[in-house]
Amino acid sequence: MDFSLPAKMKSIVASIRELMASEVLPLERELAERGSFTATLPSLEAARAKVRERGLWAPQLPKEWGGMGLSLTEHARVSEELGQSPLGHFVFNCQAPDAGNMEILIQYGSDEQKRDFLGPLARGAIRSCFSMTEPDLPGSNPTWLATRAVTDGEDYVIKGHKWFTSSADGARFAVVMAVTNPDAPPHLRASQILVPLATPGMKLVRNIPVMGHTGDGWASHAEVLYENCRVPRANLLGPEGAGFVIAQERLGPGRIHHCMRWIGICERAFDLLCRRAATRQMAPGKLLGTKQIIQEWIAESRAGIDAARLMVLHAAWTIETAGLHAARESVSLIKFFVADVMGKVLDRAIQAHGALGVTDDTPLAYFYRFERAARIYDGADEVHKVAVAKRILKRYGVEGA
Amino acid sequence: MDFSLPAKMKSIVASIRELMASEVLPLERELAERGSFTATLPSLEAARAKVRERGLWAPQLPKEWGGMGLSLTEHARVSEELGQSPLGHFVFNCQAPDAGNMEILIQYGSDEQKRDFLGPLARGAIRSCFSMTEPDLPGSNPTWLATRAVTDGEDYVIKGHKWFTSSADGARFAVVMAVTNPDAPPHLRASQILVPLATPGMKLVRNIPVMGHTGDGWASHAEVLYENCRVPRANLLGPEGAGFVIAQERLGPGRIHHCMRWIGICERAFDLLCRRAATRQMAPGKLLGTKQIIQEWIAESRAGIDAARLMVLHAAWTIETAGLHAARESVSLIKFFVADVMGKVLDRAIQAHGALGVTDDTPLAYFYRFERAARIYDGADEVHKVAVAKRILKRYGVEGA
Amino acid sequence: MDFSLPAKMKSIVASIRELMASEVLPLERELAERGSFTATLPSLEAARAKVRERGLWAPQLPKEWGGMGLSLTEHARVSEELGQSPLGHFVFNCQAPDAGNMEILIQYGSDEQKRDFLGPLARGAIRSCFSMTEPDLPGSNPTWLATRAVTDGEDYVIKGHKWFTSSADGARFAVVMAVTNPDAPPHLRASQILVPLATPGMKLVRNIPVMGHTGDGWASHAEVLYENCRVPRANLLGPEGAGFVIAQERLGPGRIHHCMRWIGICERAFDLLCRRAATRQMAPGKLLGTKQIIQEWIAESRAGIDAARLMVLHAAWTIETAGLHAARESVSLIKFFVADVMGKVLDRAIQAHGALGVTDDTPLAYFYRFERAARIYDGADEVHKVAVAKRILKRYGVEGA
Amino acid sequence: MDFSLPAKMKSIVASIRELMASEVLPLERELAERGSFTATLPSLEAARAKVRERGLWAPQLPKEWGGMGLSLTEHARVSEELGQSPLGHFVFNCQAPDAGNMEILIQYGSDEQKRDFLGPLARGAIRSCFSMTEPDLPGSNPTWLATRAVTDGEDYVIKGHKWFTSSADGARFAVVMAVTNPDAPPHLRASQILVPLATPGMKLVRNIPVMGHTGDGWASHAEVLYENCRVPRANLLGPEGAGFVIAQERLGPGRIHHCMRWIGICERAFDLLCRRAATRQMAPGKLLGTKQIIQEWIAESRAGIDAARLMVLHAAWTIETAGLHAARESVSLIKFFVADVMGKVLDRAIQAHGALGVTDDTPLAYFYRFERAARIYDGADEVHKVAVAKRILKRYGVEGA
Repeated sequence: MDFSLPAKMKSIVASIRELMASEVLPLERELAERGSFTATLPSLEAARAKVRERGLWAPQLPKEWGGMGLSLTEHARVSEELGQSPLGHFVFNCQAPDAGNMEILIQYGSDEQKRDFLGPLARGAIRSCFSMTEPDLPGSNPTWLATRAVTDGEDYVIKGHKWFTSSADGARFAVVMAVTNPDAPPHLRASQILVPLATPGMKLVRNIPVMGHTGDGWASHAEVLYENCRVPRANLLGPEGAGFVIAQERLGPGRIHHCMRWIGICERAFDLLCRRAATRQMAPGKLLGTKQIIQEWIAESRAGIDAARLMVLHAAWTIETAGLHAARESVSLIKFFVADVMGKVLDRAIQAHGALGVTDDTPLAYFYRFERAARIYDGADEVHKVAVAKRILKRYGVEGA
Repeated sequence: MDFSLPAKMKSIVASIRELMASEVLPLERELAERGSFTATLPSLEAARAKVRERGLWAPQLPKEWGGMGLSLTEHARVSEELGQSPLGHFVFNCQAPDAGNMEILIQYGSDEQKRDFLGPLARGAIRSCFSMTEPDLPGSNPTWLATRAVTDGEDYVIKGHKWFTSSADGARFAVVMAVTNPDAPPHLRASQILVPLATPGMKLVRNIPVMGHTGDGWASHAEVLYENCRVPRANLLGPEGAGFVIAQERLGPGRIHHCMRWIGICERAFDLLCRRAATRQMAPGKLLGTKQIIQEWIAESRAGIDAARLMVLHAAWTIETAGLHAARESVSLIKFFVADVMGKVLDRAIQAHGALGVTDDTPLAYFYRFERAARIYDGADEVHKVAVAKRILKRYGVEGA
Repeated sequence: MDFSLPAKMKSIVASIRELMASEVLPLERELAERGSFTATLPSLEAARAKVRERGLWAPQLPKEWGGMGLSLTEHARVSEELGQSPLGHFVFNCQAPDAGNMEILIQYGSDEQKRDFLGPLARGAIRSCFSMTEPDLPGSNPTWLATRAVTDGEDYVIKGHKWFTSSADGARFAVVMAVTNPDAPPHLRASQILVPLATPGMKLVRNIPVMGHTGDGWASHAEVLYENCRVPRANLLGPEGAGFVIAQERLGPGRIHHCMRWIGICERAFDLLCRRAATRQMAPGKLLGTKQIIQEWIAESRAGIDAARLMVLHAAWTIETAGLHAARESVSLIKFFVADVMGKVLDRAIQAHGALGVTDDTPLAYFYRFERAARIYDGADEVHKVAVAKRILKRYGVEGA
Repeated sequence: MDFSLPAKMKSIVASIRELMASEVLPLERELAERGSFTATLPSLEAARAKVRERGLWAPQLPKEWGGMGLSLTEHARVSEELGQSPLGHFVFNCQAPDAGNMEILIQYGSDEQKRDFLGPLARGAIRSCFSMTEPDLPGSNPTWLATRAVTDGEDYVIKGHKWFTSSADGARFAVVMAVTNPDAPPHLRASQILVPLATPGMKLVRNIPVMGHTGDGWASHAEVLYENCRVPRANLLGPEGAGFVIAQERLGPGRIHHCMRWIGICERAFDLLCRRAATRQMAPGKLLGTKQIIQEWIAESRAGIDAARLMVLHAAWTIETAGLHAARESVSLIKFFVADVMGKVLDRAIQAHGALGVTDDTPLAYFYRFERAARIYDGADEVHKVAVAKRILKRYGVEGA
């Protein structure tokens, strides 16, 4: 049992903190004022240049693709630092959904796919999106998809209706989940297919207004129609019918990343909570931090965040040492445990700020709005809870609980 | 003990429901699409005209001022109906902060003040705002104000910095809380003074961005500077030094209104939760509503809302039968109890909607964003909890707990 | 809408408070020291004599049976006072399970049954028990019973295994739920049959050790075997097959009584919490009650208890004015809502007492142990939650959720 | 970062599990039936003999004192196994309060004290107790003690009133905290003094009834009077005035042990919860474990226990690698975090068992009763929360929050 952070990681984390403070945090205000991701892009690209210079680009990517080649647990630690700002992962080129798409391409991409799609992504030259969720069917039942890709000669012809195809606005291509083998067993019906956004028949209906914002560019969530959208069969990722399996492989480590990002958010909110407690006077000379209710919030937040981080690092370590399959239960556990901690810490930090907490003068209201979805995406909390319980009960002899 | 709703109120509630459905709810989408209160005003005025026609204008106002003359408990019941939409109270001319200002003017206004300020407000011809909260001092300690109004001949000269002067944008006048008697005991230091927005020296700095929106018109929260802002002493409301006492009188019934509005929001969210449960399929033919976790949310929400409503009606009844002072404890209790129920019901409704819940395709995300403040304004929950406990402990012989 | 307590009830409540303070509370210590209900019986009977003298005997019984003839809402209010002590209801002869059995006998008993069973119960001369729950089948599914009563000539022959036949030890008779019509629809299979405890074949296996105590007399929970236990068919209560329907009728008002008793417990615990806060010094001169965490507990407890009482009184009023069927949802809601409040208030009161809280030097540890079952008996909380949700969802068109 | 369990510990844990199953768990029923610790002692001693035989005696003690010489993190892991039964730690001779007293004696005992007190304790020949808590002063303020030890020639004369001197009944000696230097700074006022129970003037007033039981022998909590109780000054442990410091040193690792014992309890309860879910039918063929509410309990319990364990192991590792002082915050965090998880897991397990859950037919009701104190002893949760927050706020510049 060893909980220490290796010297190499200490040094990386320190460098990242510096860059976050000097290059990333200042851009939050610019983004807020411009109200547009695209308009902020030049500044973001300048920050990305600094990151490349410092050799911290794409921490999760293998060195051969221009990244730092960090392991999952190492990147998890980095992800916590980046998560303290909504812009951190983007500036370091390890943002969802591109990071996940790069993982898929590394593992399943053909040489051509790697050259055309992975290379530019790894360099940060283009963006991508992942087109799985459908408005009419529950994401919690990922094998139940209405979108179809039918073979027609050398092509697939795709028909379907998707939404929360996040970051589609301005992306170069989408990875689309579509049923190719409707008669196969449920887990072998769908495939993942690369669809360039310029493809005729792929129609970006709208950026969905989420929490009062339609967003733009990377910071958006598209509704997309595939109306007889035709792509070459060479755009298939991995074997036909393997879409669900690939998605699962992508989601496991992806949840580690999300969870560590959430812990970064927790730490940011915790720091703001403590700063507020340490400076706000409730009566002349009487600091907010002397109030027991605030003290209880601080202590409970600290316990929750520490527990959450250990849980995530343990899950990452399990994936690394025993494989994704052995870690499935741990990954489900952290999904809902960490999201719950984050929600509570954000809530306390806002409440401690009073009226200031609901304004955009701190990042708390932003996190409050846009991280509410943490309990929903990548499998709603309830779905993970039920999945964990069923897996445990199976060990007690209960089949199909 | 009689929990029944009188026949008169049943009929009023039924009429209001009709108008809400036909005139108010459809405007929610218009507001969302226009993204501006001011741009939606023509449609809102048309809806107001329908309300006047049906004799449902200003339910809380005495008949002599053109209202329905409902009692506090009667209006509470109405307020629940109106609260189901963010636009309900405005369309019926009983919205904060105007409703509170009208109450003050009725009770404390001089004949001239009534003529110049109350009359137009009651007719819906103008809007007003209430300028109390200051960014640098805690609202939870309402006698601690930095804003000063100094007598100079026949005038007051006001200097100070306020924020969350809600609805100042486009208002005709503000009721400003300012210290006039700095050497008096804390509760007798401040006065309420009418300040027309055109007054030189009153500077609307900005509409504060709240939860990602600066808002406009009635739907905004201003930061305001008073830089040697000069108004006649005749603009004083009630006696000098009575500002805090008047504010307390205003807040008591005001909290009843807020709480019943929140219950309206709860019922709207509860209805959406149940509709979702009754229609969303999680697997072919398997409704969301058959899931026990959802069933638990429905049951706990129902219990919470019913409890909240009874608490508020009981508090309103106590004010009516025994006076505001006797009801102080009840009013503090409902403030945090109902806000807590609302937060939970909204959270469950959003979660049950999955990805749809965080979009603006339902009103849930709007309520989630803008009612977070319910636990903060009019006294943060924690302030009310501490106040209740101290009052109770006084009965056990503890002074100054 | 009228929340006031009628003058008649104010006077009754005042008298009961006096008697509780002078006759009942002092017996708690005697019971604790003797460690036996039976050994304390003489003192309890003396207290009962005082109750009869003051004309407060059996508040829930019709006057013709020697009671006060209170309505359901009136008795609810009384029940709160009695509930402040574990001995209150017994001393006033309105304790479970006798009160419920008397209700059944009044409504369904034949003249002979009334004479032989109801009369002595009403006078407090005997005790009874209700034998429904079975160890091997879930109480949450009350139509699923294994106990059978087979007709044999003029007799029923009963075979079955029951437990939590509370107060069987020393009782004169049991009301036994047994299946008489196994081929009828589920809700019409069982009957209620009077079985004197002296009947051969009825075997009291043990008083079940509950929370470390086997208990005795009224304060016990028996496991019972019916081994070809033979009673005359004249012992049938109401029509054959009506057992479940009668049980439901008994449980509705019974839950009102339980809930108001729990509110009595809440008020006792709340009073102890406040007394502790008002007297315990945490540092020289620094009272526990000055700590915000304790203040928060006091405020949240006060809100919870007030909400709970209003909910119960509303449910009782609904039963009285609209009938049990109309009140089914309300009755389910209070079952879990009030039990939850009670659990929280007891927990806070214990915690505020520190080490003293887990000792038997206050009644808190007693309530903590023996009221844990409140969330289980008469339908576990979860069963009621699911039932409420299904009833609500039916109104949204969902059948058999 | 390495979360793996070393091979040595795997083997030890396996052996302990075997012994727990074969020797310890069967004694739970004997203890329940006899209702007396002392009466069960012969069987417990027989089990202890088996433990010695297998070389698993006193895992926490250095080998020179006959123990296994495990490190803190190693013993923590063992403690979890032992904690699954209330008798585990006793049978392996690492039970509170003896384990703590042995630690003190090893570090501070003179050669004579080690010979006379530590030796017999380490062999399991005698028992001891720790006499610190006072009924009239809060344990949360451990420097505020009324008990005095006054020097008189070569003796101390002790006067004071203690309670929760656990296991005093039948113990050979007590370690008594008494003020020896009333004029020193608060943290240097008290000393620890060895007082044999046979000493005149030490009066065991009663075994305090706790949760309905007075208990006996090791399983008891005494109220003790020191009435001019005279012991030689040679009975002082460590330097005069060091009592508080020694107590803190004892409590740090002690809390690790408690927390891991609680996790053992959690695992026992979790196993019972799952077994119940996997076997109880709610309707013919419909297992309890198919209900989503139960599934949610299982998942949330699993997450909570895993988080708790990681937190405790991390705190133990911090003590080992950085010292007790560096670990103070972590130790406070686990105190309230783990106690909270345990309370929730026990509550869910009981609820899932229905009526069976409140009986003594499972160990759940025992844990429910006697582990309620976990949130109180060794510093109430609230005390630790406030302490953590103050320490954190100090880093933000707030002194004396």
